[in-house]
Amino acid sequence: MSVDKLVAKIKDKSNPSIAGLDPKIDYVPMYLREKAYAEFGKNLKGASEAIWQFNKGLIDALYDVVPAVKPQSAFYEMYGLCGEEVLARTIEYAKEKGLYVVLDVKRNDIGSTAEAYSAAYLGKVDIDGVEAEPLPVDCVTVNPYLGTDGIAPFVKDCKKYDKAIFALVKTSNPSSGELQDIKIGDEKIYEKVAALVNKWGEETIGESGYSAVGAVVGATYPEQAKVLRKLMPKSYFLVPGYGAQGGNASDVKFSFNDDGLGAIVNSSRGIMCAYKKENAPEESFAECARKEAIRMKEELCSIL
Amino acid sequence: MSVDKLVAKIKDKSNPSIAGLDPKIDYVPMYLREKAYAEFGKNLKGASEAIWQFNKGLIDALYDVVPAVKPQSAFYEMYGLCGEEVLARTIEYAKEKGLYVVLDVKRNDIGSTAEAYSAAYLGKVDIDGVEAEPLPVDCVTVNPYLGTDGIAPFVKDCKKYDKAIFALVKTSNPSSGELQDIKIGDEKIYEKVAALVNKWGEETIGESGYSAVGAVVGATYPEQAKVLRKLMPKSYFLVPGYGAQGGNASDVKFSFNDDGLGAIVNSSRGIMCAYKKENAPEESFAECARKEAIRMKEELCSIL
Repeated sequence: MSVDKLVAKIKDKSNPSIAGLDPKIDYVPMYLREKAYAEFGKNLKGASEAIWQFNKGLIDALYDVVPAVKPQSAFYEMYGLCGEEVLARTIEYAKEKGLYVVLDVKRNDIGSTAEAYSAAYLGKVDIDGVEAEPLPVDCVTVNPYLGTDGIAPFVKDCKKYDKAIFALVKTSNPSSGELQDIKIGDEKIYEKVAALVNKWGEETIGESGYSAVGAVVGATYPEQAKVLRKLMPKSYFLVPGYGAQGGNASDVKFSFNDDGLGAIVNSSRGIMCAYKKENAPEESFAECARKEAIRMKEELCSIL
Repeated sequence: MSVDKLVAKIKDKSNPSIAGLDPKIDYVPMYLREKAYAEFGKNLKGASEAIWQFNKGLIDALYDVVPAVKPQSAFYEMYGLCGEEVLARTIEYAKEKGLYVVLDVKRNDIGSTAEAYSAAYLGKVDIDGVEAEPLPVDCVTVNPYLGTDGIAPFVKDCKKYDKAIFALVKTSNPSSGELQDIKIGDEKIYEKVAALVNKWGEETIGESGYSAVGAVVGATYPEQAKVLRKLMPKSYFLVPGYGAQGGNASDVKFSFNDDGLGAIVNSSRGIMCAYKKENAPEESFAECARKEAIRMKEELCSIL
């Protein structure tokens, strides 16, 4: 199973972290922006090419440190077709470098529409008998609000094509509780979703003991993570909110199982903008990102 | 406000329906597919071009009958960059023909990521002082599972750029109840979401009396629609599930207010595949779509 691939890469690099590739334009060093604008214009194409150079530098600096990367689709969609093209190039390059790729798209729909989304990223598209893979990644994020109808097509492709998903359970943002924390008797909505995640994943357990259906559980809610860890013992957790959003290593430790596995902690801004935090020259962005990724790895390993 | 534009178009055409452009490849007449495959190959490009010809034919046949179209992003994303390019072309063409365009993307994320999604479709992207509009539409669908953090950036752009959104409240699919129907005391989750929709929309009421924050309420749940209509008097409802999914005109009437406004009913397969249902020659797909759109309009008008 795909989750076994992820576990193997985490073990291989002794690093349960994932580098978010959320390239906001103001994260990109100005010298890269200016070079791209000079070549392609100050437009969607120029911005996208600057992002590509930034991503390439980051991947080159990180691929032997981190097991996985997580491009956030929004930051590519916002540059239209040029952005989408750079997303495809980024994914391709990360895979070439041996990285596990989680595409953060939070897609959600029903029936044949959910099938179409799954085909776009996890499965294959049938064109009157000819198969194509539009944008193949190892794993995508999905939103569970529509229930099983919205998830089953993805799970089917996880089995068929050896892929994985992370479903939103308890997100890291301040207002996540408005719906997710609503209490029904002794239970909260996110616990109901956790039960669904278990059910969705039950036929997809890999050799590592983990299922293809993981859960997004924010680092900013450690108490909830503790409960969710017990409720979904076989699900990998994708943990956003570490670093810039306020979650620290002691917060994320509850997302891991006793085997030191079960979670992969995301850092986006922390790694991408390490050069800014250190007031280092822009040209050293990749080196600074690498240093921060190593620091994060050591911090996470120290609590496991 | 953008919702006033929608209301004006609905009144102008005396038609509260919206044509879904969900072009599954097997909906596309074979003669269009074969022509595109011959020219571009049986690949992502060929499939996308066949879809474009289909969409163009549909828009040409429908633009003076329906006030709005709703492309479903999944069916374009599944053909990769070629599909995205055809989505952009379809949106552009529909706008040229005076149609209100709702892009069904069900996006959801937080903070700057939600801002990026909103910039992609509703707002503008700032490229170091130069503004660009990657894929501008009138309205997008959004998923509320992350709470206010996930919606506020869209609402901000609705105000700034005169746009609108529809948030999922009660979806049309069989398993929608797994989360949406959970009871908390006397209330259900979808009612909680309805209260949030009211709050999100309260500063966006247009001259028509409707707000920029609408709600997705499935035609397949008429009893719930009745309740939700009262709970969100100022929200336009986007009503999927009519026709192919089993909802009929008497089911959707509960989604309207007494003024005959307040809802726009979607039909995708019913219109796109009308030629199949009638066993008509493929070449008459556009004419059949038009006939079905007129039939639907008359049916909806008869219950209002």
